[in-house]
Amino acid sequence: MRAGELIEAFWRTANARDWAAFGRLLHEDIVYEVPQTRERVRGRANYVEFNRTWPGAWTAAVTELFDQGDKGLSVVDFRVDGAAETGISRFEVRDGLIARITDWWPAPYDPPRRMTDKIERY
Amino acid sequence: MRAGELIEAFWRTANARDWAAFGRLLHEDIVYEVPQTRERVRGRANYVEFNRTWPGAWTAAVTELFDQGDKGLSVVDFRVDGAAETGISRFEVRDGLIARITDWWPAPYDPPRRMTDKIERY
Repeated sequence: MRAGELIEAFWRTANARDWAAFGRLLHEDIVYEVPQTRERVRGRANYVEFNRTWPGAWTAAVTELFDQGDKGLSVVDFRVDGAAETGISRFEVRDGLIARITDWWPAPYDPPRRMTDKIERY
Repeated sequence: MRAGELIEAFWRTANARDWAAFGRLLHEDIVYEVPQTRERVRGRANYVEFNRTWPGAWTAAVTELFDQGDKGLSVVDFRVDGAAETGISRFEVRDGLIARITDWWPAPYDPPRRMTDKIERY
């Protein structure tokens, strides 16, 4: 499967808590990394557990998808317990399976002092 | 030009501080948004000024590029005054020019308490 199809199936099975189908999308040697926290999970079974045990009544809606065949990227609107977060996930495909995921979770922050007044807030 | 070519030229001219060439890549009605701070800059002249006045001796090295023709995304390793940040930028193309940019700057954070011990740090 192309990255785009795998990514759609990844989020569909995660939202459905169908961990058997979710696991079938993953390479046995998958590596999952969060650069912001420097966390890493290795291997299909560990990565399924990481997702299966994620707390809260969460859902992820894909708002953006990039598909380059052997790699792809999704942006999701992640909702959990009334809070909204944005998740940006980069996927690498090997042997037709998801072999690497890099996840970013950009949180709100106060704008720095800017050197121009040409900025509005929304 | 495709999104990928525009994105490469965007970062190349920005790194070169060639603001005339940078501006020629932009749609007159470009909209730039930072969802994390809810900042917005509208219009070519304002957006050039926003970049031109960015403080510090910064450089941006593209580490990841997605090109879907009319949209694209880059990940950059942004260095300024000895600090390293990651910038994730989504680009939309209209009339062969960059018409919309959405920018995320995911900063480091402490990992939350996890429900599994299958996580390493790196």
